[in-house]
Amino acid sequence: MSGVLEKQELKIVGTRPVRPDGADKVTGKAVYGGDYHLPGMLWGAVLRSPHAHAKIISIDTRKAAALSGVKAVATHSDFRESDDSDEINAGETMIDIDAAAQMCLAKDKVFYDGQPVAAVAATSAEIAAAALDLIDVQYEVLPHVIEIEDAMREDAPVLHDDMFTQGMPETPKTASNVSMRLEKITGDADAALDDADVVVTRRYTTQMVHQGYIEPQSCVASVSADGQAQIWCSSQGAFMVRSVAAAITGMNLSDLRVVPLEIGGGFGGKTTIYLEPVALVLSRKSGRPVKLALSRDEVFRSTGPGPGTIMELSLGATKDGILTAAVMDLKYQVGAFAGSGCGAGVMHALGCYRIENTRVTGCDVVSNMPSTNAYRAPSAPQAEFAVECAMDEIAEQLGMDPIELREKNGVKPGDPSFSGAPLGQVAFMETLAAAKSHPHYSAPLGPNQGRGIAAGWWVNHGGESTVMVSINEDGSAVVATGNPDIGGSRASMAMMAAEVLQIPMQKVRPIVADTASIGYSMLTGGSRTTFATGRAVCEASAEVVEILKSRAAMMWGVEPDQVEWHDGEARCTAPGSDEAPLGIKQIASQTAKTGGPINAEIVVNPHDALPTYGVHICDVELDRETGHVSVVRYTAVQDVGRAIHPSYVEGQAQGGAVQGIGWALNEAYVFDANGRMDNSGFLDYRMPVASDLPMIDTLLVEVPHPTHPFGVKGVGEVPIVPPLAAVTNAVSHAAGMRFFDLPLTPDRVYAAINSQS
Amino acid sequence: MSGVLEKQELKIVGTRPVRPDGADKVTGKAVYGGDYHLPGMLWGAVLRSPHAHAKIISIDTRKAAALSGVKAVATHSDFRESDDSDEINAGETMIDIDAAAQMCLAKDKVFYDGQPVAAVAATSAEIAAAALDLIDVQYEVLPHVIEIEDAMREDAPVLHDDMFTQGMPETPKTASNVSMRLEKITGDADAALDDADVVVTRRYTTQMVHQGYIEPQSCVASVSADGQAQIWCSSQGAFMVRSVAAAITGMNLSDLRVVPLEIGGGFGGKTTIYLEPVALVLSRKSGRPVKLALSRDEVFRSTGPGPGTIMELSLGATKDGILTAAVMDLKYQVGAFAGSGCGAGVMHALGCYRIENTRVTGCDVVSNMPSTNAYRAPSAPQAEFAVECAMDEIAEQLGMDPIELREKNGVKPGDPSFSGAPLGQVAFMETLAAAKSHPHYSAPLGPNQGRGIAAGWWVNHGGESTVMVSINEDGSAVVATGNPDIGGSRASMAMMAAEVLQIPMQKVRPIVADTASIGYSMLTGGSRTTFATGRAVCEASAEVVEILKSRAAMMWGVEPDQVEWHDGEARCTAPGSDEAPLGIKQIASQTAKTGGPINAEIVVNPHDALPTYGVHICDVELDRETGHVSVVRYTAVQDVGRAIHPSYVEGQAQGGAVQGIGWALNEAYVFDANGRMDNSGFLDYRMPVASDLPMIDTLLVEVPHPTHPFGVKGVGEVPIVPPLAAVTNAVSHAAGMRFFDLPLTPDRVYAAINSQS
Repeated sequence: MSGVLEKQELKIVGTRPVRPDGADKVTGKAVYGGDYHLPGMLWGAVLRSPHAHAKIISIDTRKAAALSGVKAVATHSDFRESDDSDEINAGETMIDIDAAAQMCLAKDKVFYDGQPVAAVAATSAEIAAAALDLIDVQYEVLPHVIEIEDAMREDAPVLHDDMFTQGMPETPKTASNVSMRLEKITGDADAALDDADVVVTRRYTTQMVHQGYIEPQSCVASVSADGQAQIWCSSQGAFMVRSVAAAITGMNLSDLRVVPLEIGGGFGGKTTIYLEPVALVLSRKSGRPVKLALSRDEVFRSTGPGPGTIMELSLGATKDGILTAAVMDLKYQVGAFAGSGCGAGVMHALGCYRIENTRVTGCDVVSNMPSTNAYRAPSAPQAEFAVECAMDEIAEQLGMDPIELREKNGVKPGDPSFSGAPLGQVAFMETLAAAKSHPHYSAPLGPNQGRGIAAGWWVNHGGESTVMVSINEDGSAVVATGNPDIGGSRASMAMMAAEVLQIPMQKVRPIVADTASIGYSMLTGGSRTTFATGRAVCEASAEVVEILKSRAAMMWGVEPDQVEWHDGEARCTAPGSDEAPLGIKQIASQTAKTGGPINAEIVVNPHDALPTYGVHICDVELDRETGHVSVVRYTAVQDVGRAIHPSYVEGQAQGGAVQGIGWALNEAYVFDANGRMDNSGFLDYRMPVASDLPMIDTLLVEVPHPTHPFGVKGVGEVPIVPPLAAVTNAVSHAAGMRFFDLPLTPDRVYAAINSQS
Repeated sequence: MSGVLEKQELKIVGTRPVRPDGADKVTGKAVYGGDYHLPGMLWGAVLRSPHAHAKIISIDTRKAAALSGVKAVATHSDFRESDDSDEINAGETMIDIDAAAQMCLAKDKVFYDGQPVAAVAATSAEIAAAALDLIDVQYEVLPHVIEIEDAMREDAPVLHDDMFTQGMPETPKTASNVSMRLEKITGDADAALDDADVVVTRRYTTQMVHQGYIEPQSCVASVSADGQAQIWCSSQGAFMVRSVAAAITGMNLSDLRVVPLEIGGGFGGKTTIYLEPVALVLSRKSGRPVKLALSRDEVFRSTGPGPGTIMELSLGATKDGILTAAVMDLKYQVGAFAGSGCGAGVMHALGCYRIENTRVTGCDVVSNMPSTNAYRAPSAPQAEFAVECAMDEIAEQLGMDPIELREKNGVKPGDPSFSGAPLGQVAFMETLAAAKSHPHYSAPLGPNQGRGIAAGWWVNHGGESTVMVSINEDGSAVVATGNPDIGGSRASMAMMAAEVLQIPMQKVRPIVADTASIGYSMLTGGSRTTFATGRAVCEASAEVVEILKSRAAMMWGVEPDQVEWHDGEARCTAPGSDEAPLGIKQIASQTAKTGGPINAEIVVNPHDALPTYGVHICDVELDRETGHVSVVRYTAVQDVGRAIHPSYVEGQAQGGAVQGIGWALNEAYVFDANGRMDNSGFLDYRMPVASDLPMIDTLLVEVPHPTHPFGVKGVGEVPIVPPLAAVTNAVSHAAGMRFFDLPLTPDRVYAAINSQS
């Protein structure tokens, strides 16, 4: 592969074939975590803390263990002796094994309502549930704390007496609920703010929100008598499951094989695990396969949502609309255990713009809520929400078109990135231009309607992938990767392989292999899969083409460089040759005589992923009698490098936009006075559904990544970033007043517009 | 890897660790073909011919299809339109797809009792069985023929009107039951026989025998709405299953994924398939997964046993015991369809010895019996039985020790092989010497006891294999191959990888991957797996060591050639370096910073497998009142190159010896007057069981293969070759008369010894 192919050279990339996994998914045949069963399997169930914060005095499981049909009972003591120093690299986040173990089964304290405390495995789900009632847990209930600022008070109950704020010049000697502080400074922000012609200073808040994947976590684990084990589950990465489950239970990785099943949505929430180590322990103790599955209530209460935030921002600009200063403070509500909140927030907050003088501080605050996890572009939507709302106010105050303001300040190739290194071929300018010229941006608005726009970016990841491309004896091909297919990656992998091999995409079978059958591959996450794993697919396919050419050369008795590959066949270019071309099938059928099987395995670990950018245009209509906000038109414009299968890239933009609209208008964790979650179901935790929304229009801006064979950039995370501000800016314009606190639920909007008059 | 390692350098190869698949197999947890189930699965059943030979006039399946619970009915017309030219390379044999399809479901004729004619899939096994009774098949019964010489008569019923004997200078124009004739000549055998001091001329016969694997064939197939399909089954090669099933049903290989389950014995009998194409068609028609499983009766009547033979031999020698001439004619009873009988027979018959003047002719004869298939060293036990019995008579006539006679004539390195090329480092002489000095050979015999010895050889195969060795993040490893583990190959693969990586074998997980997860790999068969696939394991492991060294070099900032690998750790040899060694775990945990995952995929296609040799010593005791023969002592001496896991190599020798004893003493297909098999069960088809036999002693002779990293030679097939003659020679000595016709059942022996007196 040399250089990026031009669009007109492509036969398959850029088309919209039926996905290889489509038929099984629409006919109900695809096997998700919950669909997997084994003969003799036991049903597991998990006893959970009813307290937001308590010491565990004792756990008496004897009665439960004695119940007929109960085959095993597990508590934290069944895990390996914990070793606090272990961390697993899960791509966008690091997984602390001690904390992860406590989220599977609590150790000596419970830190949130719903935290697992003990588990049983029994011959039926009913017996398992009955056994939970027989487990006697003695708690000493402790005062709890939920809100960020409450948790930061000097007199707040401290969750972890060994938590000393990290990231400061000197680590404090007193434990607190602040797990991390960060600061990033350029220039002199205070002086620049003083000099600015216009300054917007605001406080913004967002709430804890859940990814809301359709499929609750579910797994089956089976441990053999010699300790070797297998897990079948859905996740964003079978290798992550293997790493974390083995670390928590104290296994060699070679003794654990994880088979990825279909995944019904992850959005970052399935980048760690809550069930698999428990199922392993129960299977080990019972000698039988064990199934564990979460209910929706358990998903809300005990998996990892995205953090809420409190953000203060002062943004200054010249009267010509040149941003000169930003001072920003970000507080992330990371839940019960130290998590990665503010890091990506500080990194992303101002990353769309060149601003000379900045001071961004951030901190992560623990409190008695579920420990947060990655949620699509983790930490970026919150921080960029604040910046994009303030940008809108600056544009308003300057009487400037909000896209024009962004064009004046937006990053271009060569500008310094967060790390200081110059940015590569970013395409924010092209994306802004496409949004500005989109018909939506100049369409008329009706009464009580407002339009908002916002930009957003995400850094995108590369990372480790292994790919194997094999040619079958009939010239068809198999592409095996280690990346679960969440958003259509089977289709894009097969298309890229088919394009390079120059054979029909229907002759390429893409599969997601298990952890023993393919080499290590990082999570499907960080918008890395089509980029990094896809690059490995291209390289492996190109290597296979070279092998095919050399085999044809062998069959003809010519040199390999006298063979060219066109349209899936080898053509002999040796002087005077009149050999008929050799098709891939002819070459593949002769491998026993020409050197054996034709396949190529490639590992990649690219570090040259490019950031991508989105600009969203949102029209809302405000019902002034109820405060209800309807999104009436929505357009997501996105820089995508090049879309392999445009429908699935558009789908990413649409899905991200809808999730962001949910954050903006509806979604929030609600806790009662005892710190128990009050809305742990889809009736009360209100995510947007199809009837709430217009069709989300998309416009893909294709500026190819210069070093990816097909120009691919990461696309999955960017689209959740702009909607929070796009919606909020639209509501602000419709209402004629500014809003700063999400979600913009009818009661809040109603109260605000009525207090105004 | 350079050169063969000396035994004293090895830490793991040659030891006897617990096998990685052992715990699951002894606890009943391992999943064999019959253990696999899917939700919504249908049960298939197959209607079989009650006639040995008949035309199918019509098949009316309407009543069966209308039965409540029946979801699909299949006949031959549901396969793709057949293409007679298709052949699949199954290693030791070629699979003719047209014939294979007719063994799955008959086309327009039935050729043997038990041949499948139609199949149904229903919601229960009972309904499926009931539906078979509702299928109305009209036959025109034809005269049938069973015995070789009957089938060769001019007036014999001809099975296939398009069968014209192959292999002759001119193909005959009249169809016959002789599918193939071969001739191999060296020197002038007739003249040399005339000149010989001693000539033995005999006619030998053997009977059709079954491999008798414990596990009957069984499979589950599932076809998706878009035509993609998956098969779970046990076989000797998932890639073979994929090839044959796809060819018969007209699928792209990329649309079919075959997942190998555990196999309960194959011995060559599972190198082709009888159920999978039928299950695919039934699943395609019903839209549901379909299971098909054979009963033992069906296994006997409709799978592929080994051929019976009629063999005529004249063997001549000088009075000093130098073999000078051999004239041999071999007739193989290959069953209903043309099969590969005489080819390997002609090749192997005289291959233990240097004989200047030889003429060996062979033919394959079809008749109305199940079509034969490979059975452990296919065709060799029969042909070598004849030669080894004649050798015993020559030794007797010359008054020469039978091992000494073999030593005088046995092949040595450099002697011409069957193809004419000189033999490599064969070790027949060492094996004969080991047998001669074994205490068994000079032990005293009791009354009515006799001792026989016989030699045997097998050519052994190489062939195509793909292997992937991956290092996990904790420094443990996975070895993935495409070869089903029949005789302990998981253990030997893990041991070879561990030896090269220099880590404990318990940190290496060996797995058998499915056809989508690993590159093409030929059958586990032909005694090729430890040799060829094992070589790939060694090469892949060595490549992984090179990667580990280069990563360590990167971490130290030195050149890769300044790193050595010892005891599973990298040691820095750069001048002045005082770096502490880097263990495999330390290197493996840093891959994200040093170039990505560490793994290596290797394909091999070796053509340098070496033949191996066995010499068996057998003592029998004859009950003259009943004719019953007891084996009272048995020693199998075998040339093995080098034993990776000696217990499993000994197990191969023991298992082969027992099967050969069965051929010699008990086993035979018996047909009634209508050509229906009369003994299709283990009560009447009498295989040796533990209580019939003494412990089979083994002695492994290790003369390493000079170009295999650990000196491995093929070991699985040789041990079935010597027992037929070893037992027969022993019985001849005990009885004081010669026997020529197998099996030596009590009634035959009784009749012979009583006709003698």
